Amino acid sequence: MLSYSVVGTGAIGGFYGGRLARAGRTVRFLLHSDYEYVRQHGLRVDSCEGDFVLPQVEAYRSATEMPESDVVLVCLKTVRNHDVLPQLLRPLIHEGTTVVLIQNGIGLEDDLQDVFPGLQIVAGLAFICSAKAGPGHIRHQDFGSINLGNFSCPGDRFAALLADMQDAGLKAAEVPYLEARWKKAVWNMPFNGMTVALNTSTDRLLNTPATRRLIYDQMMEVVGAAQALGVSTLTGAFADQMIATTDRMVPYSPSMKLDFDNGRPMEIEYLYTRPIAEARKAGFDMPKLAMLEAELRFIESLNSRDK
Amino acid sequence: MLSYSVVGTGAIGGFYGGRLARAGRTVRFLLHSDYEYVRQHGLRVDSCEGDFVLPQVEAYRSATEMPESDVVLVCLKTVRNHDVLPQLLRPLIHEGTTVVLIQNGIGLEDDLQDVFPGLQIVAGLAFICSAKAGPGHIRHQDFGSINLGNFSCPGDRFAALLADMQDAGLKAAEVPYLEARWKKAVWNMPFNGMTVALNTSTDRLLNTPATRRLIYDQMMEVVGAAQALGVSTLTGAFADQMIATTDRMVPYSPSMKLDFDNGRPMEIEYLYTRPIAEARKAGFDMPKLAMLEAELRFIESLNSRDK
Repeated sequence: MLSYSVVGTGAIGGFYGGRLARAGRTVRFLLHSDYEYVRQHGLRVDSCEGDFVLPQVEAYRSATEMPESDVVLVCLKTVRNHDVLPQLLRPLIHEGTTVVLIQNGIGLEDDLQDVFPGLQIVAGLAFICSAKAGPGHIRHQDFGSINLGNFSCPGDRFAALLADMQDAGLKAAEVPYLEARWKKAVWNMPFNGMTVALNTSTDRLLNTPATRRLIYDQMMEVVGAAQALGVSTLTGAFADQMIATTDRMVPYSPSMKLDFDNGRPMEIEYLYTRPIAEARKAGFDMPKLAMLEAELRFIESLNSRDK
Repeated sequence: MLSYSVVGTGAIGGFYGGRLARAGRTVRFLLHSDYEYVRQHGLRVDSCEGDFVLPQVEAYRSATEMPESDVVLVCLKTVRNHDVLPQLLRPLIHEGTTVVLIQNGIGLEDDLQDVFPGLQIVAGLAFICSAKAGPGHIRHQDFGSINLGNFSCPGDRFAALLADMQDAGLKAAEVPYLEARWKKAVWNMPFNGMTVALNTSTDRLLNTPATRRLIYDQMMEVVGAAQALGVSTLTGAFADQMIATTDRMVPYSPSMKLDFDNGRPMEIEYLYTRPIAEARKAGFDMPKLAMLEAELRFIESLNSRDK
């Protein structure tokens, strides 16, 4: 039976870690501001799939104090992946540790592998509407499936990990790593940035003809980039599907919009800079998403100037 | 000696018409809200080239009341060029009337010629910082030159027009029509829209590396479009020059930003939609300016929704 450490016990880490703990797995939670609260009151998950409370959880305030776990679920924003994440992971990584990056973006696994060459890495793609409602309190509103892409993990470990997720009642499936990352970018790249750049919501973008067309064009840039990088299974039909899916969604603020609205740094690097650079290396240009990246950099520079 | 009618007696029309009147030309001004004030108090121009007052001017409140003039200076925003401008011009156009379009954008002359096939049309390109300070009161801050491009005007009339401008002390020169329009677009297309899209000023766009690069890329899209349309004299060196010029300018709000800030409609059609369409017809794509157009359309749709 695998043991787990959750790095980043927020909307994502609290939910997936909480579900694994409820299913009987050993799960250790790394916490910062919520540490005292969670140590005393445990973790509460209000969920559309059924509310639950874990009155006692293994809470830690420092990675160096955490016992050895088989699997580390990284559920942090990617904004500190370059500087903070390696320091955070170093004490948690042992012979046979698997790190699952439940994060958004392109290039995350490559960068982590560069720092830890022998590390077993899995890409975690969460499809979930979830938010932090308060200290130790997660509100899971909709969806909740998690796809796992094997980046550099032995097959038996990967299978055990997948089985644990399914055993916790989660919709979990194996997906081809690169295809899955780029498929997610088809939605993420247009909507995250555009809701910030135009300070709006997904429905308004799709209900205005000019931006509906723009969102579609940006999706097709992602499709084109993915194809240039060898993901031949990703086609324009998927962009159509993503538009249709979003039409049926309630007005939605993507994670970058929430970060922006709450004055948190935006994940520009792994959501924009990196995929655009990867595509360019393969000879494919993403002009509209490169423009969006520049606009976001500008908006971010204003934000940090205000502080 | 040519006689003039000025349609749109604002920052531009008030200045150029005022200078021609001061130089002794017959100039008739069409006014709307300022009609009563100007009829009683005349026109006042506070100018970096010397203040002057015209205590009595020929003021009209309707185009149908205006006597026949040799030249009509159109100094209106282009937002009503399709519907209102032809109606406004019809009573002013006689055998031998020359219409000078002192307006921004691409395609203005072609569209007007389609409505009035025999009409003599001149493109007027104003390089001026000027604003309306109050009723019948223009404040001219900087620059003031005007370039004229001959679209469909007999040579002698064009020469007389140019001579009148120079006689009024204006820096006026003949320029090749299409090249001049596209040259102006090199500055206009990036800065007008980007200051609105990011709600900022020219200096902040250039002082942030990401947007400085973006502005340059957009300028190069204009250069590429112009070349695709046969304007071979316009090269990347002109984009470099425009960036350098703007670096030396005081922080500046382009006309579209002023329109936006004051809740007036933006000149999206002739500043973006039309040049982008012209370029596309010639097989040249302007993806970043097309994205900017979409963002402006979105912003405009919010504005009109608010009303």
